Amino acid sequence: MPVIDPLKAPHRTGSIYPEPYATMMRGRSSLRLGEAGGLTQYGVNLVILEPGAMSSLRHWHLHEDEFVWVVEGECTLIDDQGETLMRPGDCAAFPAGKPNGHHFLNRTDRVAKFLVVGTKAPQEIATYSDIDLRVELAGGKARFTYKDGTDWTGVR
Amino acid sequence: MPVIDPLKAPHRTGSIYPEPYATMMRGRSSLRLGEAGGLTQYGVNLVILEPGAMSSLRHWHLHEDEFVWVVEGECTLIDDQGETLMRPGDCAAFPAGKPNGHHFLNRTDRVAKFLVVGTKAPQEIATYSDIDLRVELAGGKARFTYKDGTDWTGVR
Repeated sequence: MPVIDPLKAPHRTGSIYPEPYATMMRGRSSLRLGEAGGLTQYGVNLVILEPGAMSSLRHWHLHEDEFVWVVEGECTLIDDQGETLMRPGDCAAFPAGKPNGHHFLNRTDRVAKFLVVGTKAPQEIATYSDIDLRVELAGGKARFTYKDGTDWTGVR
Repeated sequence: MPVIDPLKAPHRTGSIYPEPYATMMRGRSSLRLGEAGGLTQYGVNLVILEPGAMSSLRHWHLHEDEFVWVVEGECTLIDDQGETLMRPGDCAAFPAGKPNGHHFLNRTDRVAKFLVVGTKAPQEIATYSDIDLRVELAGGKARFTYKDGTDWTGVR
């Protein structure tokens, strides 16, 4: 059955980030809609931001295109150009390899939701714009490093 | 600027289908949002169906994952299992290679809109479930054939 029952989609909470960053993701969760529907070439997640939550650390992807469509509430996009308030029906695209770090904040007092699509590249590097951190993703494993490529062992 | 202005997105009308099928797509158009945002790995289109319009001939993709999210109005999904009425926030996934032909009809008296995401595979074959037609897509070119692989020259 191609129609996806959101109640049966995997609901992910928490974060793969090392601390102290994982804790900063409190109030963010996502429904893995594409996974629930059997898609493998890209992910489609419905991200749910409680009041005060953020979608991720500000980051950009080397190999994966990203697309966001706001579904409910209001999200503030933060990127290299500044801040943009986005409402339902507003959308944004972040082409692979463009080093424009971005994330979304819910600064309102009600829940905000957006769809995010991201290619599932065999290998990926995400770089976190505001801190000395990046992550290499391959084969379902994540290796966090400093921006000089050495293993991350804590905030320095 | 990552935020996409829908007024600046390419607005496609018409169809690449040969007649008599192209005419059947009247009332369908799409905004190429992903293209407007510089994405190359998958397409993201906002499909607009006027009352009575259909999204496409009923079809399935060999190599490309497809995902649909209803944004406005009501769409009737037709697939091998029958009919499913879909409303804003409902979504469906069609994994590459699964031969479940599908399309969406607007049987209401007001406009319906849905987002559709589709991988941009280097080569693709789409097969039309209800008629003797398929299409091979590569390098920006489309070759329509009968299901036996010979060139399509008209309804037979």
